[in-house]
Amino acid sequence: MYDQKMAKAAAENLRRVRECKPLVHNITNYVVMNYTANALLACGAAPVMAHAIEEVEEMVSLAGALVLNIGTLSLPWIEAMVKAGKRANALHVPVILDPVGAGATALRTDAARRLIEELSIQVIRGNASEILSLSPERPESRTKGVDSVHTVDQVAEMAVALARKLKLTLAVTGVIDLITDGEQTCRVMNGHEMMGRITGTGCTATAIIGAFLAVEPDSLRAATTGLSYFGLAGEKAATRTSAPGTYQIALLDALYEMKEEELSAGARIQV
Amino acid sequence: MYDQKMAKAAAENLRRVRECKPLVHNITNYVVMNYTANALLACGAAPVMAHAIEEVEEMVSLAGALVLNIGTLSLPWIEAMVKAGKRANALHVPVILDPVGAGATALRTDAARRLIEELSIQVIRGNASEILSLSPERPESRTKGVDSVHTVDQVAEMAVALARKLKLTLAVTGVIDLITDGEQTCRVMNGHEMMGRITGTGCTATAIIGAFLAVEPDSLRAATTGLSYFGLAGEKAATRTSAPGTYQIALLDALYEMKEEELSAGARIQV
Amino acid sequence: MYDQKMAKAAAENLRRVRECKPLVHNITNYVVMNYTANALLACGAAPVMAHAIEEVEEMVSLAGALVLNIGTLSLPWIEAMVKAGKRANALHVPVILDPVGAGATALRTDAARRLIEELSIQVIRGNASEILSLSPERPESRTKGVDSVHTVDQVAEMAVALARKLKLTLAVTGVIDLITDGEQTCRVMNGHEMMGRITGTGCTATAIIGAFLAVEPDSLRAATTGLSYFGLAGEKAATRTSAPGTYQIALLDALYEMKEEELSAGARIQV
Repeated sequence: MYDQKMAKAAAENLRRVRECKPLVHNITNYVVMNYTANALLACGAAPVMAHAIEEVEEMVSLAGALVLNIGTLSLPWIEAMVKAGKRANALHVPVILDPVGAGATALRTDAARRLIEELSIQVIRGNASEILSLSPERPESRTKGVDSVHTVDQVAEMAVALARKLKLTLAVTGVIDLITDGEQTCRVMNGHEMMGRITGTGCTATAIIGAFLAVEPDSLRAATTGLSYFGLAGEKAATRTSAPGTYQIALLDALYEMKEEELSAGARIQV
Repeated sequence: MYDQKMAKAAAENLRRVRECKPLVHNITNYVVMNYTANALLACGAAPVMAHAIEEVEEMVSLAGALVLNIGTLSLPWIEAMVKAGKRANALHVPVILDPVGAGATALRTDAARRLIEELSIQVIRGNASEILSLSPERPESRTKGVDSVHTVDQVAEMAVALARKLKLTLAVTGVIDLITDGEQTCRVMNGHEMMGRITGTGCTATAIIGAFLAVEPDSLRAATTGLSYFGLAGEKAATRTSAPGTYQIALLDALYEMKEEELSAGARIQV
Repeated sequence: MYDQKMAKAAAENLRRVRECKPLVHNITNYVVMNYTANALLACGAAPVMAHAIEEVEEMVSLAGALVLNIGTLSLPWIEAMVKAGKRANALHVPVILDPVGAGATALRTDAARRLIEELSIQVIRGNASEILSLSPERPESRTKGVDSVHTVDQVAEMAVALARKLKLTLAVTGVIDLITDGEQTCRVMNGHEMMGRITGTGCTATAIIGAFLAVEPDSLRAATTGLSYFGLAGEKAATRTSAPGTYQIALLDALYEMKEEELSAGARIQV
């Protein structure tokens, strides 16, 4: 029922992150900076946050992946993202975009579209509404702040078409995550509803995919295995607590404590 | 001794927040963004942080309440707060102001006063020194950074007069919280001294009042019931730990786990 | 083997921080603002974060110490740091600098050097690579984002020479911390490897030294005793958990719960 090859790839990618400790350069939002940094450390990666236009090119040249997250956007940050992204492209450093709140305001939708247009991006991860808002033929839909008003299933077809058009991997996360590069589509059944009760789990998923992209050249596989790892950690954390404060902490612990064989046994991925 | 009607209103407002999941738009400080977002989620509300002047009007139009917090202020953020606030006013979205550190520096005192002058604000929540600094006849007093050098009792009379003058609700928080709209005055006896040992509890109180304002048109009642809920959660958290790291986490858990009947039984409000 | 006088000074400085509750003004990075504020509160100090150029002079005039941290730098923040630092110097408020990521990008290295040149700084705390990057004769070395690629031992000699040249105290932290003012050198053996698995421990160490500087005029002693206290708290926290999420929280608890006699007994300082 679940893909064993992918499950093994998840474990292998986790092993590589822990071994290589890739530097992940984040230009991300204020809300999640601390949590994301701790999550990346818990995975085994080395996070750095740097947003000044004067230094992003230099910083990204040291990095194994670049994470762009528009969660608390302002104009100077967009310019820094473009600059960092272009440099990353030139150096073949993979780039992942989290279009937080795209569809809620024009600033966010336009910024996400501009980044997609001007940069070569490997993976975009968002909720269904955010991904929908990136489609040129988007219907009259609005993201509710940063929350989706659509399910992954409702946008599955559009996502496949959009991924093909944009020539990148889309990771649409929800109860079941859908990852597609337009040719192949994977579904990740790992995860727990408690993950939606704390802030920044989407952003953290994106950062973890970033760490996986640093060690896995196949974008579809990096996104799929990264999400499976994160989702399984979310399940483990939920066995320890059912309240969000302790859950937020237990999730970091679970990322850190996850054994590779545990991941290959627990990954629920369909290809 | 305690007002039963208010205690029931507290439970009812909590129920409404959980049912309606209002989007609460925060323009707040860097220190508390993550904690505030998690606290709002724990209450059942949907937080969004957005500060760019280009998007605040659009974002606030999706929101049930607007929270303005000057804790790590800079000039562009003041402009964004004014813009968001005016739009909120036009759309009848309630606005709550947290004048963090007003009285400590002219930038903060002046910004708070400007926001009060240019916007129609429903509730201002601050400690005694911060509230005192908003009075035109403020004595020579200084807020110590973001900490009060006055007690709530010392400023009670002034607060009533100021609330009447400004035609809004003032929530002066301390050991006992005083909430007044100039006509009626409530006191909330819920709370625990551990709440002062972690950062951002004042800011969190403000955000929670914001969520309550989204479901309760009476400002005095929204502020009073919101503070009672938060204070009772603080008491519950203190039964689990007496150290601040775990307390910070236990407080989020307590907000989430609070049963409505528990709140109506535990609310200690005097009208 | 360990210096008893220093161990007693550590306990005495902790007592003073708890008694005087010094206001510590932080111009620091977004990632650690919340954690640093909570750590300072756990120590007994009163944190305030303020970065706007319009208010930093006023804010620092209320403070017992000024902490400058370049972890998520941008140009306006550098100007604010210079302005706050000059005012601190005029008022004899001690200044501590954390050159996060110096050596990784020119912006950071140059900013750190400019701050050193334009201000009278009492203590600089960084990892070995960061400190190395401040030396005029720095070899061709790069900080890996914010992580050191050198050990403290490798830079010990250079640090002593640099401290003498700059006429300030350097605190080079790692497995063993080295603190030197160019004349005297101390080593702190407290600490635990888990401290490197969460984000912002270096920044927190800097902030704690800041609090100690507010009550201890001898910079070498303030830095040494502050690091010993923080390191011992790190050891205590490690007795409770071996996963980073809970460790982050346990560390705050340990700072708060540390008894003064426990610190004087547990401090492992060599002079």
